[in-house]
Amino acid sequence: MVGGGPGAFIGAVHNRAAALDGLAMLVAGAFSSDSAKSRIQGEAYGLAPKRVYGSFEEMAAREAALPVGERIDFVSIVAPNHVHFPAAKAFVERGIHVVCEKPLTTTLNDAEELCRLVRRHDVVFAVTHTYAGYPMVKQARALVQSGALGTVRKIIVEYTQGWLYHLLEQTGQKQADWRTDPARAGAGGAIGDIGTHAEHLARYITGLELERLFADVSTFVPGRKLDDDANMLVHYQGGAKGILFCSQISIGEENRLAIRVYGTKAGLEWHQEDPNFLYVRYPDGPTAVYKPGHSYLAAAAQRGSRMPAGHPEALLESFANVYGNAMRVMLARRDGRTPDPLDLDFPTVQDGAMGVHFIETAVRSGREGKWVDASYDPPGR
Amino acid sequence: MVGGGPGAFIGAVHNRAAALDGLAMLVAGAFSSDSAKSRIQGEAYGLAPKRVYGSFEEMAAREAALPVGERIDFVSIVAPNHVHFPAAKAFVERGIHVVCEKPLTTTLNDAEELCRLVRRHDVVFAVTHTYAGYPMVKQARALVQSGALGTVRKIIVEYTQGWLYHLLEQTGQKQADWRTDPARAGAGGAIGDIGTHAEHLARYITGLELERLFADVSTFVPGRKLDDDANMLVHYQGGAKGILFCSQISIGEENRLAIRVYGTKAGLEWHQEDPNFLYVRYPDGPTAVYKPGHSYLAAAAQRGSRMPAGHPEALLESFANVYGNAMRVMLARRDGRTPDPLDLDFPTVQDGAMGVHFIETAVRSGREGKWVDASYDPPGR
Amino acid sequence: MVGGGPGAFIGAVHNRAAALDGLAMLVAGAFSSDSAKSRIQGEAYGLAPKRVYGSFEEMAAREAALPVGERIDFVSIVAPNHVHFPAAKAFVERGIHVVCEKPLTTTLNDAEELCRLVRRHDVVFAVTHTYAGYPMVKQARALVQSGALGTVRKIIVEYTQGWLYHLLEQTGQKQADWRTDPARAGAGGAIGDIGTHAEHLARYITGLELERLFADVSTFVPGRKLDDDANMLVHYQGGAKGILFCSQISIGEENRLAIRVYGTKAGLEWHQEDPNFLYVRYPDGPTAVYKPGHSYLAAAAQRGSRMPAGHPEALLESFANVYGNAMRVMLARRDGRTPDPLDLDFPTVQDGAMGVHFIETAVRSGREGKWVDASYDPPGR
Amino acid sequence: MVGGGPGAFIGAVHNRAAALDGLAMLVAGAFSSDSAKSRIQGEAYGLAPKRVYGSFEEMAAREAALPVGERIDFVSIVAPNHVHFPAAKAFVERGIHVVCEKPLTTTLNDAEELCRLVRRHDVVFAVTHTYAGYPMVKQARALVQSGALGTVRKIIVEYTQGWLYHLLEQTGQKQADWRTDPARAGAGGAIGDIGTHAEHLARYITGLELERLFADVSTFVPGRKLDDDANMLVHYQGGAKGILFCSQISIGEENRLAIRVYGTKAGLEWHQEDPNFLYVRYPDGPTAVYKPGHSYLAAAAQRGSRMPAGHPEALLESFANVYGNAMRVMLARRDGRTPDPLDLDFPTVQDGAMGVHFIETAVRSGREGKWVDASYDPPGR
Repeated sequence: MVGGGPGAFIGAVHNRAAALDGLAMLVAGAFSSDSAKSRIQGEAYGLAPKRVYGSFEEMAAREAALPVGERIDFVSIVAPNHVHFPAAKAFVERGIHVVCEKPLTTTLNDAEELCRLVRRHDVVFAVTHTYAGYPMVKQARALVQSGALGTVRKIIVEYTQGWLYHLLEQTGQKQADWRTDPARAGAGGAIGDIGTHAEHLARYITGLELERLFADVSTFVPGRKLDDDANMLVHYQGGAKGILFCSQISIGEENRLAIRVYGTKAGLEWHQEDPNFLYVRYPDGPTAVYKPGHSYLAAAAQRGSRMPAGHPEALLESFANVYGNAMRVMLARRDGRTPDPLDLDFPTVQDGAMGVHFIETAVRSGREGKWVDASYDPPGR
Repeated sequence: MVGGGPGAFIGAVHNRAAALDGLAMLVAGAFSSDSAKSRIQGEAYGLAPKRVYGSFEEMAAREAALPVGERIDFVSIVAPNHVHFPAAKAFVERGIHVVCEKPLTTTLNDAEELCRLVRRHDVVFAVTHTYAGYPMVKQARALVQSGALGTVRKIIVEYTQGWLYHLLEQTGQKQADWRTDPARAGAGGAIGDIGTHAEHLARYITGLELERLFADVSTFVPGRKLDDDANMLVHYQGGAKGILFCSQISIGEENRLAIRVYGTKAGLEWHQEDPNFLYVRYPDGPTAVYKPGHSYLAAAAQRGSRMPAGHPEALLESFANVYGNAMRVMLARRDGRTPDPLDLDFPTVQDGAMGVHFIETAVRSGREGKWVDASYDPPGR
Repeated sequence: MVGGGPGAFIGAVHNRAAALDGLAMLVAGAFSSDSAKSRIQGEAYGLAPKRVYGSFEEMAAREAALPVGERIDFVSIVAPNHVHFPAAKAFVERGIHVVCEKPLTTTLNDAEELCRLVRRHDVVFAVTHTYAGYPMVKQARALVQSGALGTVRKIIVEYTQGWLYHLLEQTGQKQADWRTDPARAGAGGAIGDIGTHAEHLARYITGLELERLFADVSTFVPGRKLDDDANMLVHYQGGAKGILFCSQISIGEENRLAIRVYGTKAGLEWHQEDPNFLYVRYPDGPTAVYKPGHSYLAAAAQRGSRMPAGHPEALLESFANVYGNAMRVMLARRDGRTPDPLDLDFPTVQDGAMGVHFIETAVRSGREGKWVDASYDPPGR
Repeated sequence: MVGGGPGAFIGAVHNRAAALDGLAMLVAGAFSSDSAKSRIQGEAYGLAPKRVYGSFEEMAAREAALPVGERIDFVSIVAPNHVHFPAAKAFVERGIHVVCEKPLTTTLNDAEELCRLVRRHDVVFAVTHTYAGYPMVKQARALVQSGALGTVRKIIVEYTQGWLYHLLEQTGQKQADWRTDPARAGAGGAIGDIGTHAEHLARYITGLELERLFADVSTFVPGRKLDDDANMLVHYQGGAKGILFCSQISIGEENRLAIRVYGTKAGLEWHQEDPNFLYVRYPDGPTAVYKPGHSYLAAAAQRGSRMPAGHPEALLESFANVYGNAMRVMLARRDGRTPDPLDLDFPTVQDGAMGVHFIETAVRSGREGKWVDASYDPPGR
């Protein structure tokens, strides 16, 4: 991994995502351009010290020198935008696959150069427009492809946040700092950071590419160096029209990425903050609400779910919270430490016994048709 | 891991959850009582063959014989209910920590025996009442504890599913098969499988324990051997009353676990299928909607989130879907295989270049105040 | 009208509802057992003084003495529960049709006596279980009748309020006062006031009648004389089972009447506080959301709407608010009074001119493809 | 009333709205420019034949000739757009108050002339931008006025419909016919019909007026003569920016009028199809959901409700549906006709008796703590 040092959040997300299905594990990294910080982060991940590097150049050179099978299979680039191009170039030129954060680069020249390098060195190169990974987004795309919407006429897509409603970049907040700095973020503020996701989402679902646009770009917060809000009229190839807007000053909004597509036969709507619901509206019948995990979904949508229907993916993290607390208590035991009180928050064997008592009590009440005593004090509490 | 062989779903969930924060990785397992199936599953997980066992007895004995540091730190028991007790006992008696699925055992005697063994051998023992792991459930609990609801008067808790609306157990569906078999599931059908989650959730949030109950227990599907629906009147210690119901024949419902708690000052409501919204209602002010990732939340609720506000935990899996496809294409390249067409579904370097072109176009339109051409064909497409 | 004097709210609702389609207008009333109050209310309604009575006995006798065509066609009885029986009896026995609030009477004997009287005198007698009037409730009923749900297995119906969470009846609040007084309300508190609506709604939608029930009835607020909460297990004729609960101490809830019905083929759900959405869930397809005003609905559901799709019935009152303010200003002008500042809140001719300017501006910008000045100061502002 | 003849829908809405609070009743009308149709409609309303006119000119002249007290107090103009100006002018010049549909006129010249006439003749003139009448819209306005949102930065307002997704005007549908005809509708199609509502709503809530706009105006349906979709970038006086869009080809949408306002301190959101919920979002606290009928609301919002909290205004029509059926059965009795089977759909005295039986049964079960027989066959069924 390149980037993702102390204080970043997206590095840990990439790491968890890559490891989720057991297909990859983190073995090397240049987590910061400050080699001390990189080392600290490498230790936090439990990496071998010799594979924690002080720069992506060093990492690319030294990893490429390792035999295939020992060296990294691919690199994730999660550093600020201005690092994407040189880092990606360094790995691509050595024939190492790349997963890179968006926006790809800070200039179009660099982006095109990367396109050519990827072709020349024949590597796999993925950009994490992650919202395309949601099962219901894949279902939306499949519905458009199937013709269920008819010809697309109108697309309304937005990515609305509020966290930059004040001059957060001057408070030392690291996320705000580089995102509002043209030297590290590139030409776009909100446009680059989140507008690109909106553009990709509309294209991914409908297959339509932009033809022309008219943008009203604003910087609402005095002292900010890049845009923090943009409203655009957009025309797509083939005649569809619409609106694309992005904002980081829409106060109180968290991460409102949402899209509506209207065709000649039906319309659809999806919201990222409630990602398990896809609405399809018809002119002459009830609205249909699609949810993940069902056999009636398109193949790509089915494959995107790791849970049965009705179990939101969040359940995995809920599970992980139970495991995490229990494991932290185990570690404290091992090390002879008193556990953090917050770690004691997991269901115990006594909770389990209370559950079994509940079952027996309920079954007995049902059988006998009367009130039964349900109080119970399990052993060892 | 004990259980979680081919055809199970919860094994993979446990495995991912345990590994999510990098605190654990799977190293050994007795995945099935059929040793061939266990071996197949072990290979799927990439485990060393010598640590894939044909029975939990063998696993417990052989792992316990390994030196500390080499042997497993804890075991996850995810087999059907009737295996929980003997398996848990085998590990607890050898001083190995346990994470066990619910219901803990099929009889109260066994559950109490486990309570005593856990105390005697001084191990950590967690039961996966996972719904307690959601950040908004923790926030609900913190609100009750803080007195924000006043004294609790009424609790309505339900766990409603529909998947057993017909005799699914006779179609060879493995999940339905053991859950409806008294020999493997225990005395309760829906009551044991999901009713216990409802009971735990109410207790976890309110801290109140049952005092007595009256259950109307039904088996709606002819030929089924255990209950598939139960409606209960419940009284809690201290005077709160309420309803607890569970069902697996409520057709069309997926996994509707939901709770409402009414006190003397305020009431709250939470739904598992939309887990990032907690509603708190007051008699004389607007309803408050809590969401994860905010600094205004209680410490336990804050700690339960791995994402910033507005990024549902599902985003992690959406990320993993992008990674997974890209990695499968890398593997196909390595092995000289043609990738599965479904695997080609990830954003490429050309998508990235199109994003950069979009940024430049939008910024230019904004600056010039006019329509600009937004069409673009990136190199190498 | 009998009842509906100063301080009541349901009288005005009945009056507006009866007049809404121009089929009826209020011409006579005994609004209070206090004849001064009755007179005041009659004046507020602009009635002829001779048709405002001091008691229902007087009203029944004197109206019945008028020639047909002059006398009332029917009477609405909206007084507290204990008045229903004698008042209804007085009119029925004189051959006058009756619309009566629920619960019908305070004792079953009285109710049965009324049933017999209605038959003997051959009058039309309606009880205002009004929730049966919603278009989506009628659609739900039609779906059950059509067999779309298969055989009904489970019904969950609730009527949950919170307004009586404290001893409101001792603050002089008139609504709370009689509803918690056994002499005027009858044997049931929450059960009579709202539980009966829940019972009727389930019966109306499913056509199923109760067979037996088990009730857990509570009075949570110390000093209250009737129940304020009840949770019931219910069995319906034909084998369906379920839960029926009602509460007036569920703090923060307003008027949460909701029902779910699960059959062998599909399930449905409806919420009174969001009455224009009916959800139908299937085991193997997307959830269907029905809304009023569409031609795909059942005849009874279509007839229940006065608006096109997407125009909630609330729009009528929103309209009435615009009219009301404008008309109050007209009245103030007529009477030479200064209007209440709140009455000035309606769109004026200048607002209209601004709208026309907006149209012209937008059309011009669209035609010319450029920004146009949209500011405008209409004459006479 | 001028307009609202057979086939119109908005006339009946105006009539019901004006009468709802008992402040007005319909006494005269020129319902159609076809005097036969006007007469038919007048009969349907039960008006005196001499006050049903064949043209608005005749109506204005003859009503104005009646003595004050006998003549109409005001006129509602609900005819197609091109009639608004001459009709309004005719009444205003005779000193008669006017309530007029939007858009006010088909040209700005006419609108300004009306402004001047209203001032000269000193009449009350209201334009039915009815969405301003909703209680939660009034609350939104009060919140902005109170400073709760800080300085407004961004406004997103839309009015999205789908009913004109095909060439409905060529099917004989009367509503579509005149709205898409420049001669009767004016310069704007969707812009005039619904865009003006969006513009007014934003202005009403925020108090901000447009400064400039950029419109992308489309006609998607081939053969249509006016716009059916428009997306606009808008700037407000004082620096707020935003988007205003309207559409009648967004298939599957019914009547989606919605607004979001973001200030420097908080943001708000309201949706017309779910009008009883107003969302206010803060950067550092839970989202607040406001609902009608509460004492914590602003005075204008409180006054806009005719019901207690939790009783949607739709309940009034649900009530009216019960009354309507019962009254139609009474009329059938009077006239010796067999009632329409749909009219028999209202709760009867037997339903009432079943409710009373339910109360007694529930109370008894609660007292005795056991299952009780709840089946019941009321007399006379």
